[in-house]
Amino acid sequence: MRVILVAGTTQTATIPGISAAGADPSLVGHTPSADAEIIEYGETVRSPVTPVSPTGCPTPAAITRAVRELTGFDVLTVDAGLVEPTATPTIDVGARPGRDIRESEPVPTAPGAFEAARRMGKALPEDELVIGETVPGGTTTALAVLRALGETFPVSSSLPENPTSLKEEVVAEALESSGMEPGSAAHKPELAARYLGDPVLPVVAGLTVGALEADIDVTLGGGTQLLSAAALVRHAGADGDLSLATTSYLAEDVPELEAAAEALDLDVTVTDPGFEAHPLDRYAAGEAKEGAGMGGALMLADRMGVLDDVEAATLDVLSRLDPEAVDAVDGVEDGA
Amino acid sequence: MRVILVAGTTQTATIPGISAAGADPSLVGHTPSADAEIIEYGETVRSPVTPVSPTGCPTPAAITRAVRELTGFDVLTVDAGLVEPTATPTIDVGARPGRDIRESEPVPTAPGAFEAARRMGKALPEDELVIGETVPGGTTTALAVLRALGETFPVSSSLPENPTSLKEEVVAEALESSGMEPGSAAHKPELAARYLGDPVLPVVAGLTVGALEADIDVTLGGGTQLLSAAALVRHAGADGDLSLATTSYLAEDVPELEAAAEALDLDVTVTDPGFEAHPLDRYAAGEAKEGAGMGGALMLADRMGVLDDVEAATLDVLSRLDPEAVDAVDGVEDGA
Repeated sequence: MRVILVAGTTQTATIPGISAAGADPSLVGHTPSADAEIIEYGETVRSPVTPVSPTGCPTPAAITRAVRELTGFDVLTVDAGLVEPTATPTIDVGARPGRDIRESEPVPTAPGAFEAARRMGKALPEDELVIGETVPGGTTTALAVLRALGETFPVSSSLPENPTSLKEEVVAEALESSGMEPGSAAHKPELAARYLGDPVLPVVAGLTVGALEADIDVTLGGGTQLLSAAALVRHAGADGDLSLATTSYLAEDVPELEAAAEALDLDVTVTDPGFEAHPLDRYAAGEAKEGAGMGGALMLADRMGVLDDVEAATLDVLSRLDPEAVDAVDGVEDGA
Repeated sequence: MRVILVAGTTQTATIPGISAAGADPSLVGHTPSADAEIIEYGETVRSPVTPVSPTGCPTPAAITRAVRELTGFDVLTVDAGLVEPTATPTIDVGARPGRDIRESEPVPTAPGAFEAARRMGKALPEDELVIGETVPGGTTTALAVLRALGETFPVSSSLPENPTSLKEEVVAEALESSGMEPGSAAHKPELAARYLGDPVLPVVAGLTVGALEADIDVTLGGGTQLLSAAALVRHAGADGDLSLATTSYLAEDVPELEAAAEALDLDVTVTDPGFEAHPLDRYAAGEAKEGAGMGGALMLADRMGVLDDVEAATLDVLSRLDPEAVDAVDGVEDGA
């Protein structure tokens, strides 16, 4: 069993109001590099920032790291277009940072990266993979890909108030600049990923298609971005068993999840980490919700019988990431 | 505790007679990529070959992997100029494949890679590092670097008969093409690495200097190539505690090891894995001797009380790497 983190960037994240992944828009490119370091090392190493939302909600990578400390799962990070250096070792599949989807061809590396990821997924010596993502702005590109494929599911947001109309506007512009309409990339996932996606989506889809070809069990650990990756997989004609593991926060935000999963023939596992302590209560308040493999990690924590320990372990990770969080957390840890 | 594998290439390895790392000279570029996969996954994934010497001696990476299976240590692979793809996640420090040292500037990336590695070594959240290398042809470049620094120690070889006079010839040509003489790079390690080295040496030296700056314990796990890296560290003016962990096979081959270590102020640990079973008896016959962190891994196995289990665990790794080795090995395993 191995957890794969597919980490990348899209300039789409810099459109004002699109993403909560990073306290300051100028630092958003560091978020996936920092997330990968937090999961690998339990702290940032090369990255100058620890990702938090503008209101102080900590990155879901802290939860994935906490579960890793509890269960010891192996991690593999794939460079799906990082722009900032990371101290986390990564696999190169030829992906490059994605451009704004309002440009005509935001992800020219999509076909090559899909194919390299497919070969990698097929060759990995694992029985089971859990695949997560970290790409700020990724729900907007996921929405564009879903629309290009002709799928009508909605996407979630890392913000408490989903900027739905802004996203729809961006997607409409993206379709137009690529000369496409909703549904015109149906059964042509390579077109959807290349002309409307981010570099993470074709890499997740490629890994999944390859792993399914090799009869490896795949769980996509995440929210609507992984739903979009699953749509790419199905539109590529891959029909093996496929699961989605997500958080209760995401499931609550997207009532259409069950119908979408059924349409894509996905088994869905929803896990509630039961967060109550500050600053994790921001999750219950509707921030972040998913990302960096959080839903997959929580599923593993539940399977291994340590779900009840995740909150305390996450607070412990946060106290190491951000000494200021320690004070707020001490009382909780003492009482645990 | 983390084991760092610094993996790279130098065209120097393609000089006929220089290296035993690869059954066929045309495949030698795959050796470090394959070694990294064997340590990470216990098998090759992207790499088309499993490195063995021309006489069938298995790569030391199999031993390092076996110790990893016994002890569970974390691995970090640094890309120090790989030429072939690897499925192992790697850190990028800006190193590129090294050219033949008989060219005028074989490693132009040495200064930048040294500095990036130094920053990485300083930032790693570890108390202790064990650093190993895999670079075919590396003893010849190590010899050239030692000579440029003015050090007179000899180097070992992965071949049973060390092609010493061939190496001396290559080194003499390398010094000449760079306009240098023995000792002309003393206290100028950046010149030695750039004009006479391979890309692995400055990365090992940079990691070590950075880690020593951060008071991280460093053990160089390997043979005379690591001795050459230690010389770069000392010539850079870094005087912290530094250890070398190597195999009994290497120590036997290089009687000058103790004096060299004393001159460079290195604590030396020599570990004998006691290999007897085929094909590991090739080690006792003087092949391979060291590489891919083997000496460091054996030291860890000894420290954790599992040294006696390393032979059986290595045979198990080999049986998975090469089904043909299984037959030869079965009797031994049954008797163990």
